[in-house]
Amino acid sequence: MDGAMKRRNVAILIFNDVEILDFTGPYEVFSVADELHEHLLFNVYTVAERNDAVQAKNRLSINPSYTIDECPKPDILVIPGGDGTRSLLENMVILTWIRQTERAAEMILSVCTGSLLLAKAGILDGLKATTHHTALELLSKLAPQTEILSNIPYVDNGSVTTSAGVSTGIDMCLFVVGKIFGEEASRRTAHNMEYTPVHPPSSTKS
Amino acid sequence: MDGAMKRRNVAILIFNDVEILDFTGPYEVFSVADELHEHLLFNVYTVAERNDAVQAKNRLSINPSYTIDECPKPDILVIPGGDGTRSLLENMVILTWIRQTERAAEMILSVCTGSLLLAKAGILDGLKATTHHTALELLSKLAPQTEILSNIPYVDNGSVTTSAGVSTGIDMCLFVVGKIFGEEASRRTAHNMEYTPVHPPSSTKS
Repeated sequence: MDGAMKRRNVAILIFNDVEILDFTGPYEVFSVADELHEHLLFNVYTVAERNDAVQAKNRLSINPSYTIDECPKPDILVIPGGDGTRSLLENMVILTWIRQTERAAEMILSVCTGSLLLAKAGILDGLKATTHHTALELLSKLAPQTEILSNIPYVDNGSVTTSAGVSTGIDMCLFVVGKIFGEEASRRTAHNMEYTPVHPPSSTKS
Repeated sequence: MDGAMKRRNVAILIFNDVEILDFTGPYEVFSVADELHEHLLFNVYTVAERNDAVQAKNRLSINPSYTIDECPKPDILVIPGGDGTRSLLENMVILTWIRQTERAAEMILSVCTGSLLLAKAGILDGLKATTHHTALELLSKLAPQTEILSNIPYVDNGSVTTSAGVSTGIDMCLFVVGKIFGEEASRRTAHNMEYTPVHPPSSTKS
């Protein structure tokens, strides 16, 4: 197994009207990888602004593991998308927390329209990024200094990686497992999930 | 759009140590299909034995929409898998509820090791079925009168459909959307989720 062996804290931000698969896809990938490797890889938890139950899209009710003020220090921060991202674009508490957490973290990952929050927090300036196919135009408005790519499952800039819509969060997180802990760890995780990952065309990998 | 236009109640059983993607994949598929079609297709909700929060695998905490005693009458019953299925094999309240609900429902769908519960409830007798690749042997012990298929994303018997591991629940539910409401409804749902569904080889379709 490649990569530094330190177990990573993976914080997944949740909020009202978060898209279900946007946050549960990454939750599944990182926690299955951890399970398959003696719980040495990833400590996965959800984080919300407040301690109340979060109403995800279509009425799925989730109790967050931690609030943003009390969570273990994230090594990897996952920002999912969904209709709820639109009101978070005006939420300075969350935007400030994302910006500060990202600076101290090893990496930040967005799924779907989670990229809009990264854009608004200024994290995508000078980078390449993608988002859900219906939000590409909005993303380029929010991130005029970002090169927006379409028709690609995810775009890796090292410490900042954005994925396209919904299910592509799974592909991105399997890529991240491989990047940190080696291809075999990623392959075992996908095999356990009976999932065939989609990769970006090799010419567009950064 | 093909199929009877009645909006279906989709009940997803949840329990401690349910595998996250096993239940959230179907939740996402049916609720996205519903959203894209003016909320005319599927009313999706979770159901648990009791009203307490359910601790899904890897500490994700979910508040069920309903208990099994008070939920709207399911047209489609989804039984996900996960380590928690093993103790449910001895839970007569749940097994009886599954059996009775299945008799009155239009269809029952299992994901991953959810098939073990269908087997124990006698629902798979005389049918073809599949499950997670690590549970094929256990399934054939629990369902000696069932033909167990491997290397196939899902097996359709009309009103009883079982899927293989974890992510194949998404493929199965996209198939079910198409079966009830037509291929175009399924195609739009997968496109919104940016997901490319996996199909069984056509020779093994029943």
